[in-house]
Amino acid sequence: MNTVKEIPLDYVEELLNVGIALSNTHDLESLLELILSESRRLTMADAGTLYLVQDKRLKAITAQCQTFVERWGVQTAHSLFRSFSVPIDNSSISGRVAVQKRVINIKDVTKLPEEEQHNKDFDNATNYSTKSILAVPMLNPDEQIIGVLQLINTEGEGGTEFFSENQEKIAMALASQAAVAIQNTMLTQNLQKAHLDTIQRLGLAAEWRDKETANHITRVAYYAAIIAKKIGWDQEHVDLIFNASPMHDVGKLGIPDEILHKNGPLTAKERQIMETHTIIGANILKKSPSDYMQAARTIALYHHEKWDGTGYPMGLSGTDIPLEARIVAIADVYDALSSRRCYKEAFPHPKVMAIINEESGKHFDPELVDVLIEEIDAILKIGLQYADRPEDFEKFRSYQQITVEDE
Amino acid sequence: MNTVKEIPLDYVEELLNVGIALSNTHDLESLLELILSESRRLTMADAGTLYLVQDKRLKAITAQCQTFVERWGVQTAHSLFRSFSVPIDNSSISGRVAVQKRVINIKDVTKLPEEEQHNKDFDNATNYSTKSILAVPMLNPDEQIIGVLQLINTEGEGGTEFFSENQEKIAMALASQAAVAIQNTMLTQNLQKAHLDTIQRLGLAAEWRDKETANHITRVAYYAAIIAKKIGWDQEHVDLIFNASPMHDVGKLGIPDEILHKNGPLTAKERQIMETHTIIGANILKKSPSDYMQAARTIALYHHEKWDGTGYPMGLSGTDIPLEARIVAIADVYDALSSRRCYKEAFPHPKVMAIINEESGKHFDPELVDVLIEEIDAILKIGLQYADRPEDFEKFRSYQQITVEDE
Repeated sequence: MNTVKEIPLDYVEELLNVGIALSNTHDLESLLELILSESRRLTMADAGTLYLVQDKRLKAITAQCQTFVERWGVQTAHSLFRSFSVPIDNSSISGRVAVQKRVINIKDVTKLPEEEQHNKDFDNATNYSTKSILAVPMLNPDEQIIGVLQLINTEGEGGTEFFSENQEKIAMALASQAAVAIQNTMLTQNLQKAHLDTIQRLGLAAEWRDKETANHITRVAYYAAIIAKKIGWDQEHVDLIFNASPMHDVGKLGIPDEILHKNGPLTAKERQIMETHTIIGANILKKSPSDYMQAARTIALYHHEKWDGTGYPMGLSGTDIPLEARIVAIADVYDALSSRRCYKEAFPHPKVMAIINEESGKHFDPELVDVLIEEIDAILKIGLQYADRPEDFEKFRSYQQITVEDE
Repeated sequence: MNTVKEIPLDYVEELLNVGIALSNTHDLESLLELILSESRRLTMADAGTLYLVQDKRLKAITAQCQTFVERWGVQTAHSLFRSFSVPIDNSSISGRVAVQKRVINIKDVTKLPEEEQHNKDFDNATNYSTKSILAVPMLNPDEQIIGVLQLINTEGEGGTEFFSENQEKIAMALASQAAVAIQNTMLTQNLQKAHLDTIQRLGLAAEWRDKETANHITRVAYYAAIIAKKIGWDQEHVDLIFNASPMHDVGKLGIPDEILHKNGPLTAKERQIMETHTIIGANILKKSPSDYMQAARTIALYHHEKWDGTGYPMGLSGTDIPLEARIVAIADVYDALSSRRCYKEAFPHPKVMAIINEESGKHFDPELVDVLIEEIDAILKIGLQYADRPEDFEKFRSYQQITVEDE
């Protein structure tokens, strides 16, 4: 445990409240900006850089500089930052802090012996004068190095001064809080990533049996997200439909091969069985605590309903069909028409758009048809970016050729 | 933002370090115990109860009492606690704190007017004298009530005293930190739950096509966990095999119905195709950032290898077969033998054990056969608890009968 000693009284409340604010920030980028701005504020530093340990190096993730903001404005100052990394060894100040796990407080870097000099490339390129540097290790409670917080040029009443002992203590206290907050945010991000990865696999597993390629579900997800964004959904809900839509056909897992893979039209009875994939999908996805799964269930169940009430499985019409299902319906059909399948070639773009237009108010929500047309450039771009290549159809190859792919 | 004011200097370092310790505790139960013990320590309270808001009530989650520990020892004192809940209204002290979102500091509850009396049932039942109560709201940074921290009987030099203004401030500072830590821990737990739920669905989706019931994968997961625990795996790895094993047959998604559902023995060619389910499974599960998926890939790929090298797909033998795959191999076959399938009845227990024994050192790792025999009581218990019921075979019913199950 890092024990924080002798914090000056004036900063106590500040530090406690900063700790709470850090713990409450779950987006890594915002968290790192907050750590840097709060530590600059509490130590009155003109500039600062935050390094994280990544791939056994110290990577500069973000930097802030008040002088640059005043010189060029926030945007330009921010855009000047280029990420770089230094080795974790004694060849740089931040590297030394990470190796030795202790604070380095330098009153005037220009007076350091030649071999310990601060790298002046940046100062020269930007006409900036680095004078005092306070570099603090960010150690987690197990005393492992997470990163380094480097503060530059503290400002007292008479201009640039040295970092005081008190400022050093404040920065150390903040760095300890920051280390835990960073670790927690990364833990949450990794869990979220693992969850989304598993969701993708559930969608892909279903596609494995189908006549479609893995790119199909990726394209449909993007098309749905583009439409959702255009009709004014917030980013959280756009992400939700993007991540939920890949599971729209998961119920095809329950459809017999002889129907799923039949070449030529289905009989009435076969069609009836095929249509149960919406219900089977909803049953596979039911009763989940995950928001993604709940949205996916709705989409799986209703993505074959039609605006005019002639769809399945419920025959809902108009706005009785959940909006997320109406969005995926048009995205799914648009992609089916505009891409090659095992059993058909891709239709030319004008023919695709003619069919979509013709079905406005019949199959599709007319407002969504308008949105698709407005956003057609973005949609065509995704179609090119995730176009099927010949090898994407190889999953339909013979079982003799199946080999273990890379781990 | 809760602003913490005028914390006494002596407690500054303590509070900063407690904040870090809270942020670093990710298990909800340990976190709540830590919040309560640290707030009792810093306010010198003899006893305390921690309430969380659950289902629109305040639920007492944990309680601690030094007097009881001295009277009966830690274990008995701990076992005395019975969870209870109170409404969020003015009918109790903790309820009032939650409604009014402010501290209540009562010097002597015995002197309260009749209608505001503290509930004396507990005191009477345990011969305890509650005198002073400090009850503090736990508010998150959005000022929402998360819970209430109730501290009882602070002890000064002359015995039981009143909670001072300083103790009140310390408890408030700690409660703010605690609220964020609790919220973060719950967020992580919910993400973890959603992830595990999705993993289960991936396993179930595969079973949908198979001749086995959903209970099969549940039983195999428990059997594997029992064996892993017995051979000395730590809880984390036991959990890993428990959660990864349900995906062992996910590759069957890629096997044609005519082979997967064939009654009677497979031809050599059909068998060759059937055996690719191990490779298809590994390919579906490859390159995941999730530990569960990585373990699942290994299990999917190698769970049909045999100890004597006659298995598939690689023909590995002995300890070249990853241990997690050897464990699932015996668990899977044991369950197949001991339960009914569409095409066969369950074998009687002595016959199952005779086959398993006969295959020791041939199909199965002989050490694992010994472990299965040692743990047979626990395994039989799971077999009964998750036995297939007639309705579990209904997934094989006709497509006409498929209906939407509850959301």
